[in-house]
Amino acid sequence: MSGLVGLAPSGVITLLTDFGLEDPFVGVMKGVMAAQAPNARFVDLTHHIAPQDVRAAAFWLARSVPYFPRGTVHLVVVDPTVGTLRKAIAARAGDQYFVGPDNGVLGLPASPADDVVVAELAVDSASNTFHGRDVFAPAAARLAVGTPLDALGPRLGDWIHLPGHEVEANEAGVRGSVVVVDHYGNLISNVVIPPGVEVQEVHCQGRTLPWGRTYADVAEGCAVALLNSWGYVEVAVRGGSAAVSLDAGSGTPIDVRFASGV
Amino acid sequence: MSGLVGLAPSGVITLLTDFGLEDPFVGVMKGVMAAQAPNARFVDLTHHIAPQDVRAAAFWLARSVPYFPRGTVHLVVVDPTVGTLRKAIAARAGDQYFVGPDNGVLGLPASPADDVVVAELAVDSASNTFHGRDVFAPAAARLAVGTPLDALGPRLGDWIHLPGHEVEANEAGVRGSVVVVDHYGNLISNVVIPPGVEVQEVHCQGRTLPWGRTYADVAEGCAVALLNSWGYVEVAVRGGSAAVSLDAGSGTPIDVRFASGV
Amino acid sequence: MSGLVGLAPSGVITLLTDFGLEDPFVGVMKGVMAAQAPNARFVDLTHHIAPQDVRAAAFWLARSVPYFPRGTVHLVVVDPTVGTLRKAIAARAGDQYFVGPDNGVLGLPASPADDVVVAELAVDSASNTFHGRDVFAPAAARLAVGTPLDALGPRLGDWIHLPGHEVEANEAGVRGSVVVVDHYGNLISNVVIPPGVEVQEVHCQGRTLPWGRTYADVAEGCAVALLNSWGYVEVAVRGGSAAVSLDAGSGTPIDVRFASGV
Repeated sequence: MSGLVGLAPSGVITLLTDFGLEDPFVGVMKGVMAAQAPNARFVDLTHHIAPQDVRAAAFWLARSVPYFPRGTVHLVVVDPTVGTLRKAIAARAGDQYFVGPDNGVLGLPASPADDVVVAELAVDSASNTFHGRDVFAPAAARLAVGTPLDALGPRLGDWIHLPGHEVEANEAGVRGSVVVVDHYGNLISNVVIPPGVEVQEVHCQGRTLPWGRTYADVAEGCAVALLNSWGYVEVAVRGGSAAVSLDAGSGTPIDVRFASGV
Repeated sequence: MSGLVGLAPSGVITLLTDFGLEDPFVGVMKGVMAAQAPNARFVDLTHHIAPQDVRAAAFWLARSVPYFPRGTVHLVVVDPTVGTLRKAIAARAGDQYFVGPDNGVLGLPASPADDVVVAELAVDSASNTFHGRDVFAPAAARLAVGTPLDALGPRLGDWIHLPGHEVEANEAGVRGSVVVVDHYGNLISNVVIPPGVEVQEVHCQGRTLPWGRTYADVAEGCAVALLNSWGYVEVAVRGGSAAVSLDAGSGTPIDVRFASGV
Repeated sequence: MSGLVGLAPSGVITLLTDFGLEDPFVGVMKGVMAAQAPNARFVDLTHHIAPQDVRAAAFWLARSVPYFPRGTVHLVVVDPTVGTLRKAIAARAGDQYFVGPDNGVLGLPASPADDVVVAELAVDSASNTFHGRDVFAPAAARLAVGTPLDALGPRLGDWIHLPGHEVEANEAGVRGSVVVVDHYGNLISNVVIPPGVEVQEVHCQGRTLPWGRTYADVAEGCAVALLNSWGYVEVAVRGGSAAVSLDAGSGTPIDVRFASGV
């Protein structure tokens, strides 16, 4: 385990919150980190997570992390339970660092694993603190300058794991649901397609949708299901919003039917 | 006074404007600065100040500055009087640098002080310039690379000071008003609580609000007043918008009552 | 031509897209680039181009580029034809680098020129890729670390050129049209004023507008035409939106009348 702790920081710190950009909350967190880690470089993932939508934040974090350099620190503040007894944590999982509330948003595995180390951050619950600024940003900055995880707080043996939406698969198909709606109104599901199978069609909100390769496979205004560039089944309307056209959103069932006799 | 001028830049430049992010105005200012100060690092405070709301910009700037490293340059362009004879200034106040219009937004003290130096920037009033790009960004870049303030223009002996909203305090309580409404609809006032007193309740828009420690102290949908993490009295509605629920906004009176007999 | 290829990168990469900021698409592109070009510094021009408005993106890119240091890489992803056979390109034009789709958005000249070199990027059309992340960001990162343009792909001899909106000029005036509407609702046209002429008035949507020097030249709520800080004729309403007041938008004709007998 101690070998794990020696992961060299990349100097990159990503930020993912539901703060929006109207107030300087994100900027102030960067100020705190710039003071402690002068060479850190900040990359905003997004600050427009729907207020307190831990599941959407966890989804996008997991999709984003693989594209960042080894030793990147991911600072996440989507925190509906701030002010309660939820813990504040810093973690290393694989070759990346994470800092945020212990509410499942960081996407840590359900049970302890060889490549996961979690530390509990000290929180002064008596004073009225802005945890992003006063607890999480300082911890992220310390990791970014190479402070060992163990110096940030005592190790934790368990933590909150957020179960995913259910997926049921059999030989005829896979049934899952919409996890997030993106900026364009596309419905991104939790369904992945097993290797070697051929999709025949997709059912969503009582509609039967053709299976395509790109949005351009259907006419303007028509709906299509496809495997998106994150590896998940997605429903889109060309030149429009699938969320509006199909009256669908997070949790809407998506039913993928395989071609028979393949 | 000359000792003051030697403050070493941190290399960080913050930006605070009402430009929004739809057009590349902010990016172009960063381009100008990157050309003159290649090692500068930019931190956006916010670009969503309500158009020309100097008071809100001044409030958030003052709240943000203490979290930045010594020698940071704060570039502020909230400028309803652009095109008039208002001056353009650069300043050092304490251990921070400021650049922007002379309209009070920078939060300089009402009268000259030992730790404040202000220089007037040259403005070519004959041509149609974008002051953020053509006047303020170049000055901020020069400060960020260590150019002395006195090299930017002649010293000014007075400048515009923006008086705060009024606060009346006596033994029974403090009466102030809402200064800004944040992203969540929380009402942030100019009221601070004197040390050692205990708050009994808060009156706002004809409602009597309980005094809490965190938003979680009241039930979903209920209003609460508390001391926020910036040190000011704030009115919030758990899981909702206090601005909407109480029909309140900038300027709405807030009346804080102390517990008697303490 | 080979001399051209040696342009040293500035280390700055700008980003201009229609992705919005609600999802982490922009952040993921930065992660890809940070992994390959650890010292790159990112400047967002805007991510709020109206979906697939290639013309508006091209306008703002052309206005922004002159303010960036020599050797800056401009990464543009406004790409209505993704999924079709349109090419992906990287280019050097003058002292700047460009990466994006071959749809005219990069503003390359209509025909080959001495100071323009264009390379075609490889695209794996069989897999479902997010071109911004998988094709354009890696190419931008390679340019930012000094990889020669010729190492990115074979040279192209022609490319898509986007013709501008028409402008008709004679001795009495210039007739052009609105190219973009900015954040404030100002109407920015493609009309430039020839040196030495004096403007008498501007016609737009059946209205005759006075010619001013700044917005402050007219009363609150009144419309004015002026030469903006980018060098183009612009129609504004003081304290309001010209787009709303004049019911105008992209493509609306603007007719500039010169003073006679000058």
